[in-house]
Amino acid sequence: MDNTENMDFEAKRTKQADELMQLLDERRMKELQLRLEDMNEFDVAEFLSEIGDNRMPMVFRLLSKQMAADVFANFDSPEQEQIINSITDSELSAIIEELYVDDAVDMMEELPANVVKRVMRTATPETRRLINQYLNYPENSAGSIMTAEFVDLKKYMNVRESIARIRRIGEDKETIYTCFVTSADRKLEGVLSVKDLLLSDDETVIEDIMDTNIVFCMTHDDQEEAAEKISDYDLMALPVVDKEGRLVGIVTVDDVIDVMEAEATEDFEIMAAMTPSDKPYSRTSALDMWKRRVPWLMFLMLSATFTSMIINSFEDALAVQAVLIGFIPMLMGTGGNSGAQASTAVIRSISLGDTEPEDVGRVIWKEFRVAILCGVTLAAVNFVKMLMVDRMLLNNDGVTLTVAAVVSLAIVFIVMFAKVVGSVLPIAAEKLGVDPAVMANPLISTITDAVSLLIYFEIAKLMISF
Amino acid sequence: MDNTENMDFEAKRTKQADELMQLLDERRMKELQLRLEDMNEFDVAEFLSEIGDNRMPMVFRLLSKQMAADVFANFDSPEQEQIINSITDSELSAIIEELYVDDAVDMMEELPANVVKRVMRTATPETRRLINQYLNYPENSAGSIMTAEFVDLKKYMNVRESIARIRRIGEDKETIYTCFVTSADRKLEGVLSVKDLLLSDDETVIEDIMDTNIVFCMTHDDQEEAAEKISDYDLMALPVVDKEGRLVGIVTVDDVIDVMEAEATEDFEIMAAMTPSDKPYSRTSALDMWKRRVPWLMFLMLSATFTSMIINSFEDALAVQAVLIGFIPMLMGTGGNSGAQASTAVIRSISLGDTEPEDVGRVIWKEFRVAILCGVTLAAVNFVKMLMVDRMLLNNDGVTLTVAAVVSLAIVFIVMFAKVVGSVLPIAAEKLGVDPAVMANPLISTITDAVSLLIYFEIAKLMISF
Repeated sequence: MDNTENMDFEAKRTKQADELMQLLDERRMKELQLRLEDMNEFDVAEFLSEIGDNRMPMVFRLLSKQMAADVFANFDSPEQEQIINSITDSELSAIIEELYVDDAVDMMEELPANVVKRVMRTATPETRRLINQYLNYPENSAGSIMTAEFVDLKKYMNVRESIARIRRIGEDKETIYTCFVTSADRKLEGVLSVKDLLLSDDETVIEDIMDTNIVFCMTHDDQEEAAEKISDYDLMALPVVDKEGRLVGIVTVDDVIDVMEAEATEDFEIMAAMTPSDKPYSRTSALDMWKRRVPWLMFLMLSATFTSMIINSFEDALAVQAVLIGFIPMLMGTGGNSGAQASTAVIRSISLGDTEPEDVGRVIWKEFRVAILCGVTLAAVNFVKMLMVDRMLLNNDGVTLTVAAVVSLAIVFIVMFAKVVGSVLPIAAEKLGVDPAVMANPLISTITDAVSLLIYFEIAKLMISF
Repeated sequence: MDNTENMDFEAKRTKQADELMQLLDERRMKELQLRLEDMNEFDVAEFLSEIGDNRMPMVFRLLSKQMAADVFANFDSPEQEQIINSITDSELSAIIEELYVDDAVDMMEELPANVVKRVMRTATPETRRLINQYLNYPENSAGSIMTAEFVDLKKYMNVRESIARIRRIGEDKETIYTCFVTSADRKLEGVLSVKDLLLSDDETVIEDIMDTNIVFCMTHDDQEEAAEKISDYDLMALPVVDKEGRLVGIVTVDDVIDVMEAEATEDFEIMAAMTPSDKPYSRTSALDMWKRRVPWLMFLMLSATFTSMIINSFEDALAVQAVLIGFIPMLMGTGGNSGAQASTAVIRSISLGDTEPEDVGRVIWKEFRVAILCGVTLAAVNFVKMLMVDRMLLNNDGVTLTVAAVVSLAIVFIVMFAKVVGSVLPIAAEKLGVDPAVMANPLISTITDAVSLLIYFEIAKLMISF
């Protein structure tokens, strides 16, 4: 940390980017090449993304084979496409062979068909076979995110032989820190970490130190399940086996971070009534966004026909007691917000594995108590507020004691209904195999809107000439 | 995977739990002890959590010192408290000393004060000093989640000496896979991985293979920043340095998963208008939930006073054109949902580092186009629907061509307003240093509710005698 000792990380990175840009502007390519080769691949990818479309492929071609592949894996698909379109077949082939299979597969899933064709044509038959095999695993399965590059050992090897093997074959493996012990027919027999190896004597036999209590998943398991196991068991890598128990790949801890980010984003999008997308916001076109948003808006808009019908059926009464109209938005808002709180809490709890369908009774009971506490608090505040603000301050004579009581009583029942429905629907969805995230604010609001109106008008009917 | 070859992972775990339970019921403690010692600490912790309060401490005391500490670190705080209350001071001291500092600190933050006191009393002075130092880092800072147990090397060592050192001191380190090269005054000079070590010749000097291009963070940086660096750079461990550039700890990749989960949960909660909580749903009391939910509900309820005022000021007109009332909920819902889509998309994009305050122009322009596309589509469908369903099917004579036009035109403007406001407010919050997640559905809805009404009534005034 020599000369830049007391600079923080961001300042160093900015300084580095400025220096690189200067080298590029002054066309000092040899120096630029040396600097880039020394950097982290993530930073190189960031730098290349920023220097502009026309210079980027030229600078990319300065990189060594290994660095080029690493940087390529760090690119988003538009940059990948641009690179592919500007390099020769043999350069492309070199990159594809250097990529880990899971990165290559990620890339294939995003690229346009004609580019995929060219990539497949330049790949070696073995790589082509592997990519095709991976592309056949269901989307978002453990198989689709695993990688085939792992260290395998045999149980009759000793520690010295194992370390020698790692030193020999480790270069191309995505992780060397977890090693997998397989039988002659490729069945998984045990796992052990490099830590176990290093902390054992050279002559110890693998069979004596390997862990046979293996945490694993199947190729067709959901990627979320694989991520959860890695997180629960604090693993560096999770073995993926096929139906015959043969080890076919591993999922590494850095994949989990990507999976978790993607799954959280998906939940956020579904919970805001959007069809989820793999693409970042900045890369999504307005037309694509329209496609992902408008069907849900339309469905919810048309569902609101029920609220119209309810209001229309009370139209004459409302014309007489017009003061009641003013509190409709507040009541619907309170119902929607109360329901959203409950549904969000339960949806998140389900997705973290904290709540399961069996817990439905306990959840209802809890939300019921929360609803009474919230409902009564809100009703009391509202009652005072209507008399003090609406009646006295704003001089709205229609706000009588009875009207304030009607609105406040409605709040209690609306909050109770909203919280119970908001908590039950996500659990019901989980039970039925539907994504609980669907049962979030927009849908809950549409339901509570209609019911809030009914509760409000029925209470009004009972208490005033309505 | 021998005799249970074709069973899947879940089936194996259930079988294992059943067998353990049987051993416990039959009081075959020696066998139980042997079985537990062979299992993964996460599974042991799960098993202990399930066997019931009275037998749990007894079984816990069967565990070896190392296993006891690992299982303890996997417990939630109620179980930790129960254990602490049922073991002797010397047993407690043994566990505390075995725990990694970050796990001990996590525990301290959750336990009641009297239990914390007892833990601190039984800890050695060195551990007590470390825990105190960690507790002083701000909540959610890199310092508060780092651990002090890392492997440090010197740059003049060679590979053989380094591997020997790892074999000697590695046992107690949280990760041995990233090693940190420090100077005599503990300043960080380089990093290298065990992979680098294993793939180099025995005589190579560390200085020649260490990476001086270090990705690091400061003790006071936000934990989210540390998590992002580990994720971006695919690191196993991130060094944490103090203001003087001295290495004080490391954040490991498994901490990142916890941080990401916690941060996503926090965003979900804030976006549903709840004060975030560290506790899982199932462990939160109804009273605690009330405290976290009711202030927001109250704030939003009181903000709805504006919508009441708007409606009240149009009360007379609405009494004449009562048909318009029926479409208020639909219009407010469409505004709220449109705004929620935009704000959620932008909030998520900000938190993934995809959108920054400088992008505000681009974001507005994109949302404006999406809004026109969505608004026009919805308006067209609504126009047809009002004439076909409301007028013809439901025989609502009030729904004239003009009324349908008023409502449809209002939709276009409401969607445009909602999408632009929904996308701008989170960016403005980020710029002002407020959590963008606050600008989510509940708040956006409250704003769009009021503006939707104004737009609707103004258009009605222009087009009909209103």
